[in-house]
Amino acid sequence: MSEAPAAKRQKASTPDDALPATYKLIYWPGLPGRGEHVRLAFEEAGVVYEDTAMHEDAVQTVLAQISTDNLATGSAPNVPPLAPPILEHGDLTISQTSNILMYLAPQLNLAANTSSDDPNAIYRLNALVLTALDGLSNEVHDSHHPICTSLYFKDQRTEAIRSSKQYVKERLPKFLGYFERVLKAQAERDAENKWLYGTEFTYADLVLFQCLDGTSHQFPRAVKQLREGGEYERLFALYEAVKQRPNIAAYLASERRQAYGEGIYRYYKELDVVPDDGAEAEKKE
Amino acid sequence: MSEAPAAKRQKASTPDDALPATYKLIYWPGLPGRGEHVRLAFEEAGVVYEDTAMHEDAVQTVLAQISTDNLATGSAPNVPPLAPPILEHGDLTISQTSNILMYLAPQLNLAANTSSDDPNAIYRLNALVLTALDGLSNEVHDSHHPICTSLYFKDQRTEAIRSSKQYVKERLPKFLGYFERVLKAQAERDAENKWLYGTEFTYADLVLFQCLDGTSHQFPRAVKQLREGGEYERLFALYEAVKQRPNIAAYLASERRQAYGEGIYRYYKELDVVPDDGAEAEKKE
Repeated sequence: MSEAPAAKRQKASTPDDALPATYKLIYWPGLPGRGEHVRLAFEEAGVVYEDTAMHEDAVQTVLAQISTDNLATGSAPNVPPLAPPILEHGDLTISQTSNILMYLAPQLNLAANTSSDDPNAIYRLNALVLTALDGLSNEVHDSHHPICTSLYFKDQRTEAIRSSKQYVKERLPKFLGYFERVLKAQAERDAENKWLYGTEFTYADLVLFQCLDGTSHQFPRAVKQLREGGEYERLFALYEAVKQRPNIAAYLASERRQAYGEGIYRYYKELDVVPDDGAEAEKKE
Repeated sequence: MSEAPAAKRQKASTPDDALPATYKLIYWPGLPGRGEHVRLAFEEAGVVYEDTAMHEDAVQTVLAQISTDNLATGSAPNVPPLAPPILEHGDLTISQTSNILMYLAPQLNLAANTSSDDPNAIYRLNALVLTALDGLSNEVHDSHHPICTSLYFKDQRTEAIRSSKQYVKERLPKFLGYFERVLKAQAERDAENKWLYGTEFTYADLVLFQCLDGTSHQFPRAVKQLREGGEYERLFALYEAVKQRPNIAAYLASERRQAYGEGIYRYYKELDVVPDDGAEAEKKE
């Protein structure tokens, strides 16, 4: 391995108990998943963090947290989490992707922190993040598991094909169009603005990057077709600009960046459809 | 009408421009929807608010916000919203249910504000809120629109029946069990604790109440069966306790509380299934 995993780097970097608490991400091993949004924030900021997905007992670590026996006893006022990602930072334990990011981003200088006259920036950023996760993460996942997340893909394959056709035809252009609109609004305010929040690079840009990256993994033909259509130029320029940021580029090239597998974003050949694939008979609500 | 709509009350109550900015909720008319979580917070707090769903031009007000032509020009640094609910407060415009609530709750004294030694309470509450909205709002909606939200129900009825059977069998007990676990954890810390965040009533309790109320509307037989099973006694005690809070009880009895219609939570007789209804042949992932 050319780079040590984050967990090992962390051990080497924090020999002193007096240092500030280390960020600890608790997540499933073997796939980027929702935890990836948290990793990207850490990597962009260049901070030390522990990633339990890199540990040998990674699965057990998650299961102990989400077990129905876990009452977070002794950790009050923390409440037990339903699911990962989970962040531990000092005495704090919290879950839910957007929530973890909202807590971290100001500390990592990824929340438009330079504008002290804009105390509500975090709520505007959080809305962008929640919208990206709704349309370009949750709905993408639901396209391969439309009936229920608790059933195998093979038992809902027919429905998944139909759902995917609808997604790439109706939903994907809606969400791509929304973020292009946000970027257009920024550009009309100042031609130099290329990020979701104007001149300032924020964690919302990171989230959108990862959402686009994962959606492209699951629906490569549809994203390619829509991208080449030219209607979302600002959006894909943002995607490329994030990808080329030095810390992000280094991370993506490292072994810490895991391959997409059986996570949120999955490649199934039969779901690799394009907007024109036979959904013309389906009526809109 | 025995009570004037909120919008009219607001006009009568804020004759002076020097008063603090009024809260303005922008939402679809004719159904509680996601906007209901925001209304319940206002009603519990007893504050004046404007609700555009009560206006004659309610639909146009929403459409103007979510139009692809809306670049929020002149409203910088606000960003245009994808969908309602939308909150306007002074110069601020934000969207996304959990985000609006996170902004409002501290102002409305619904975010464990009494614990000044607990600055991270809002992140614990937000995680609870997001989890309730995931499992007891979004997934409930998706049970009647499993293939795509952009198709009619009648065009995905078969899939909706299958999805609903899975939901009430696998997902509903999971989420009810999770919140019962949180309440059990609180009770083990102090037997007097009956809310999600211990002794303090918060907006997370309001959100959970509305989620349970809506889920009961869509799946009355399943919720009744699970409730009578006795495994979720703390949870349903919380539901009843919220319902009986004076401001909430008055609101629910008023004409401001709208009937469930074609919104998130919908009653279809064929989807009113119970956990035992024929899903035994479906395998879990």
